[in-house]
Amino acid sequence: MTTFTQHLDAICDTNQTLLCVGLDPDPTLLPIKDVAEFNKAIVDATHDLVCAYKPNIAFYEALGLPGLEALQKTVQHIRDVNPSIIILIDAKRGDIGNTSAAYAKALFEVWDFDAATVSPYLGSDGLQPFLEYKNKGVFILCRTSNPGAKDFQDLVVVPKESRENARPLYEMVAISALEWNKSGNVGLVLGATYPEELKAVRDICPDLPFLIPGVGSQGGQLEQAVQLGVNALGRRALINSSRGVIYASTGVDFQEAARCAASNLRDSMNKALRFEGLT
Amino acid sequence: MTTFTQHLDAICDTNQTLLCVGLDPDPTLLPIKDVAEFNKAIVDATHDLVCAYKPNIAFYEALGLPGLEALQKTVQHIRDVNPSIIILIDAKRGDIGNTSAAYAKALFEVWDFDAATVSPYLGSDGLQPFLEYKNKGVFILCRTSNPGAKDFQDLVVVPKESRENARPLYEMVAISALEWNKSGNVGLVLGATYPEELKAVRDICPDLPFLIPGVGSQGGQLEQAVQLGVNALGRRALINSSRGVIYASTGVDFQEAARCAASNLRDSMNKALRFEGLT
Repeated sequence: MTTFTQHLDAICDTNQTLLCVGLDPDPTLLPIKDVAEFNKAIVDATHDLVCAYKPNIAFYEALGLPGLEALQKTVQHIRDVNPSIIILIDAKRGDIGNTSAAYAKALFEVWDFDAATVSPYLGSDGLQPFLEYKNKGVFILCRTSNPGAKDFQDLVVVPKESRENARPLYEMVAISALEWNKSGNVGLVLGATYPEELKAVRDICPDLPFLIPGVGSQGGQLEQAVQLGVNALGRRALINSSRGVIYASTGVDFQEAARCAASNLRDSMNKALRFEGLT
Repeated sequence: MTTFTQHLDAICDTNQTLLCVGLDPDPTLLPIKDVAEFNKAIVDATHDLVCAYKPNIAFYEALGLPGLEALQKTVQHIRDVNPSIIILIDAKRGDIGNTSAAYAKALFEVWDFDAATVSPYLGSDGLQPFLEYKNKGVFILCRTSNPGAKDFQDLVVVPKESRENARPLYEMVAISALEWNKSGNVGLVLGATYPEELKAVRDICPDLPFLIPGVGSQGGQLEQAVQLGVNALGRRALINSSRGVIYASTGVDFQEAARCAASNLRDSMNKALRFEGLT
């Protein structure tokens, strides 16, 4: 069986890219009304430039059941275009064991997504049901890209066994993630907006796949995100852009503009890799 | 405008109850196949005994779009029976600001739930969009009922301003919740399975509403949960039972069994309150 990490490495190699495009339909920005048609146009314009698409399920839920139907059509279209592209659902789920099992079933069986983001707050038994899907990627929130990330994730934890080993909470999450990675299916979410924290976690977890949102409209620097985010072989980073690609233009030329933005992002990332001798 | 807390107090007074019934359809336990019909039967049998119903959205998502349609019918039926009963969606959502705004819109506008559970991991800007719905209850995960709660929630953290005030993470969440409660709409989730932690947080937050799951099949003691969970007036605790009520029998008598279980729970809680001189 192919592990999730092997699946990820293969599509990154095939399309020579670290780019993940976020498919977040915002009714105030959509150039055409039909969400499924919009996503289809974006996918048609970008599928050879990406390793993954990342729909954030919140934006579909905000549209009610028709939003979820549009997501279903989008998933089907991506499968039709190229079944090797990873569909990573950004859902940040997490609950107690039997409830996480229901979420995992929803995301990995009913929807059949390849990977999902999950929240670590409920601890190991809340994550276990996701991890049991050995060929699915489980990206655990570690150090997120938003200002409020500081509120709890940065709090310094004093371990019981030794006051010397004080570390921020997000590093404790990263250490746990390493332990949970029995099947090559654990990843972490690290915001590009906080390069020092990204570097610290890459030092702890040299080979875990990182989902790195926050470049572009959130202010993260692309080259830095690539150089700090990849493993020693220049892989294992999914650099996400949502608004920067899909709303590159909100006019009639949105499809060409999205392709142009995605292509520029991929080229800049590959240039950053070459600069480090990593292609 | 009625605050969420006033809404909660009113229905608790009217139905003389702290009981919240969790509506979690598990296909392996359902006595009848149709989820909406099952929920309708449970609501018909228990609506005068509860202050709230708490569907956990994971169980509906695991059934695909038909599951969400069943949830929609269930919500409508509860509104028809008694619009004062609180519908608290257990969803544990939380993301960066603009995405949390989409989740909040989904839960509080599209679905029109009265309250929701949310995760604190992303910090204040991730919770703000929920809090802006001033008449909706926002129950922040604090100290959950599961074994993995210890993994991160119990870690002792040191606030930047003062190394003397080291506290477990869940207490830091409770302190933040107090600050965020500008509109009488913030609550916390505290597992009945951990009475000491429940007591510690009630001491920090004397009047916030607490959602208290974990009595019954998870092993929490009912009387203790009531006595430690309520405020000084014997209110502000939603004591949740899911499996213990809705699957009290999985045979043809499930409706009578659910009523009997709910009635016993309510009576035991009220007895515990009377024992403390709180009725």
